[in-house]
Amino acid sequence: MIKSIRQLINILLVWLTTVSLTACKDQAPDPLMDRIEQLEKDGQLIVQLAELEINTDYLQSYLELLEEGIRTSVNKEPGVLTLYAMADRDRPNRITVVEVYESQEAYEAHIQSPHFLKYKNGTLHMVDSLKLTRTSPIVFAAKK
Amino acid sequence: MIKSIRQLINILLVWLTTVSLTACKDQAPDPLMDRIEQLEKDGQLIVQLAELEINTDYLQSYLELLEEGIRTSVNKEPGVLTLYAMADRDRPNRITVVEVYESQEAYEAHIQSPHFLKYKNGTLHMVDSLKLTRTSPIVFAAKK
Repeated sequence: MIKSIRQLINILLVWLTTVSLTACKDQAPDPLMDRIEQLEKDGQLIVQLAELEINTDYLQSYLELLEEGIRTSVNKEPGVLTLYAMADRDRPNRITVVEVYESQEAYEAHIQSPHFLKYKNGTLHMVDSLKLTRTSPIVFAAKK
Repeated sequence: MIKSIRQLINILLVWLTTVSLTACKDQAPDPLMDRIEQLEKDGQLIVQLAELEINTDYLQSYLELLEEGIRTSVNKEPGVLTLYAMADRDRPNRITVVEVYESQEAYEAHIQSPHFLKYKNGTLHMVDSLKLTRTSPIVFAAKK
């Protein structure tokens, strides 16, 4: 009887370990940086640089609309992976946005989305110049 | 006897569930994007744009040294968070590197590291122009 109890417990231990390891694998968040690195290796990743010069009279309003547009895009659109916006420290009306999309289709959906059009049309009169550069990723390395 | 076996199995189940959930929590990778967003909110994050024009005769050699330098920096230096290098799609000798560090100290350690100096000194004759722009992050948004 004791022997069969031990066997039962051993079987249970193996089963529970397997189940819990599988559960761990499923629970671990999908690391975005790994996804970006893989898409880059697969030649799928779309990376665009947007360089803007903003009329200083409208800078504060522009920044608010930019932030709203960025947060809505990343939250609502599955294919918008990261949007990093930064201003030149010495010339704060010069803005660069590094845009990372999972595919060309995701990019095209983005520029037709209502929140992008709201940002775009709402800021047209604030933007003195805009340069868009489509890039080819060379290395996208991130801390593990 | 049957009852005590059932009790034993129940205790084991609770214990193993607790242990496996704790293990899951420890195994989940620290999400880098959350760390970057937090450092940005705290005003700690250092973001620099490096824009380079490479002599086309040396482009292939340059790209190899750049990739080696980037991978070593991100792997070896705790404060180098991400280094994204990209080339203009239409002018592949124009390179932009988006550099993200966890602090000013991390940046200063980086530019004195042996692997950075190897890259820097090994590519001096390949670089026609280099422009470094220190930026102030506005929004760093990433897919959760």
